[in-house]
Amino acid sequence: MSKLVIVGTVAFDAVETPFGKTGKILGGSASFIGLSAAQFEVDSAIVSVVGGDFPQDYLYLFTDRNIDISSVKIVKEGKTFFWSGRYHNDMNTRDTLVTELNVLENFQPVVPESYKNAKVLVLGNLHPRVQSSVLDQMSDGSTFVILDTMNFWMNNTLNDLLEVIKRVNVITINDEEARQLTGEYSLVAAARKIHEMGPEYVVIKKGEHGALLFNETNVFFAPALPLESVFDPTGAGDTFAGGFAGFLAQTENISFENMKNAVIYGSTLASFCVEKFGTERLESLQAEEVRTRLKAFKDLTRFEIELTT
Amino acid sequence: MSKLVIVGTVAFDAVETPFGKTGKILGGSASFIGLSAAQFEVDSAIVSVVGGDFPQDYLYLFTDRNIDISSVKIVKEGKTFFWSGRYHNDMNTRDTLVTELNVLENFQPVVPESYKNAKVLVLGNLHPRVQSSVLDQMSDGSTFVILDTMNFWMNNTLNDLLEVIKRVNVITINDEEARQLTGEYSLVAAARKIHEMGPEYVVIKKGEHGALLFNETNVFFAPALPLESVFDPTGAGDTFAGGFAGFLAQTENISFENMKNAVIYGSTLASFCVEKFGTERLESLQAEEVRTRLKAFKDLTRFEIELTT
Repeated sequence: MSKLVIVGTVAFDAVETPFGKTGKILGGSASFIGLSAAQFEVDSAIVSVVGGDFPQDYLYLFTDRNIDISSVKIVKEGKTFFWSGRYHNDMNTRDTLVTELNVLENFQPVVPESYKNAKVLVLGNLHPRVQSSVLDQMSDGSTFVILDTMNFWMNNTLNDLLEVIKRVNVITINDEEARQLTGEYSLVAAARKIHEMGPEYVVIKKGEHGALLFNETNVFFAPALPLESVFDPTGAGDTFAGGFAGFLAQTENISFENMKNAVIYGSTLASFCVEKFGTERLESLQAEEVRTRLKAFKDLTRFEIELTT
Repeated sequence: MSKLVIVGTVAFDAVETPFGKTGKILGGSASFIGLSAAQFEVDSAIVSVVGGDFPQDYLYLFTDRNIDISSVKIVKEGKTFFWSGRYHNDMNTRDTLVTELNVLENFQPVVPESYKNAKVLVLGNLHPRVQSSVLDQMSDGSTFVILDTMNFWMNNTLNDLLEVIKRVNVITINDEEARQLTGEYSLVAAARKIHEMGPEYVVIKKGEHGALLFNETNVFFAPALPLESVFDPTGAGDTFAGGFAGFLAQTENISFENMKNAVIYGSTLASFCVEKFGTERLESLQAEEVRTRLKAFKDLTRFEIELTT
């Protein structure tokens, strides 16, 4: 099986939405990416850090899915990264209530020796210099690298971010962030500018409005499944990245055609993520449910106009 | 050929966008709907009213395309309806600068005798009581009726609006208006509530984010084509409705499958509309260009995941 390395946060989240609020639950970019990618036949490893307060039961969620966590460092005397947020009624905007970096402050990721030649690497949202340090460790220039980032790094460490963007194959970024990074309102123009920064592929995530995939000459659009209710959007973007990366690693095919399918898988898995708090829905997710929803995605966009060209 | 009746405004617009501003140009819901529907093999008639100041050259735009304008009443001593607006930088929001109803104030539409049994009727944005008076004139209960409306009527004449909504087959409405009309944030829930108000089909237009088509059990999504630049969004919704109606009238097929194609045609034509000011792009539009863009729509959303079910 192909190897997939996931670098990101394993954390505590506390979330408040119009539907309710949680205590400290499992969160973090690597958690969502890992659980999402676990739907595919790949050998995954998570590279992250947690504190002595992190429950063993959460770690079993990963090991039960054959995710290698030997490089999730446990800092016994430290506390796990904690984020808390409150969503507004539209579920598209949120206020951050608490950010405690804790053990993340001095995180120096170490990629396991046996994963340095992995097929696919996902660099989850982290300081861009930390992301770069992971790239330095990959022995094999053939690893396909997917980068996720956010506006915080554009505001505070833009030069470091531009350095790491140069070195990756795919960037996944949301629409507002793509506009901020490029100064272009049109997403077509924004994608072209990001393409010129380095990445061969640009994925622009538009939340409830779907996702766009660009390379130099093509564009593909995957809608978000229209949902009756969005319960908790936390981790949807990471779940997308996990499905996208997991499918690419499993199929070992990075053609534009296959990457379209990866975007559909990512969107499908993200549509489950938002149905319950945190990682809860991903934890119970069955392959058969994924297949049924993929069919719904097909039905949603399929039309049969015959064009005689 | 099938008959299509279009009731709406024929007007002067003056538009200001970040790209420039116009003097008084051709505008109005029936103008955009008519020019868009003219891409199909249908016999169309426009029912509207203009003032003595309305240029004959604009009327030729319709007659050159075999659109029957015998029911466009010319009130010699009156002035044509005039709207002026300024778009913000994001092109999604605008300020209305001027609204002069003029001859529209006393508009009493009269459907031509030979169109009272038309296959399809489009009720463009107008006072809902005026829309109802048109329905009263249709002799044939089999006419398929498409209603467009906007938030102005929800705010000011909600009961009249609900009366006319009861009587139509399809409503086209934008996302914010669907939310306002139903009090539901989820568009799936909003569509269901509107469905319960009467229309068998609900089309929710999301501008640059595409359009959703619902009936009681199915949903279909058509993306908007990602455009390098949107020059002037005025009339895009009406152009969508014109393409949607024109295709349904031409094919005389109102199955859900065929209505999906109608949504794609509507989106395709709307994608041209926004490329130039007002109706300019629709006036020059060639069938071959439409076909090429339909192909782009197919390529944009087509993916090939094989599901063994």
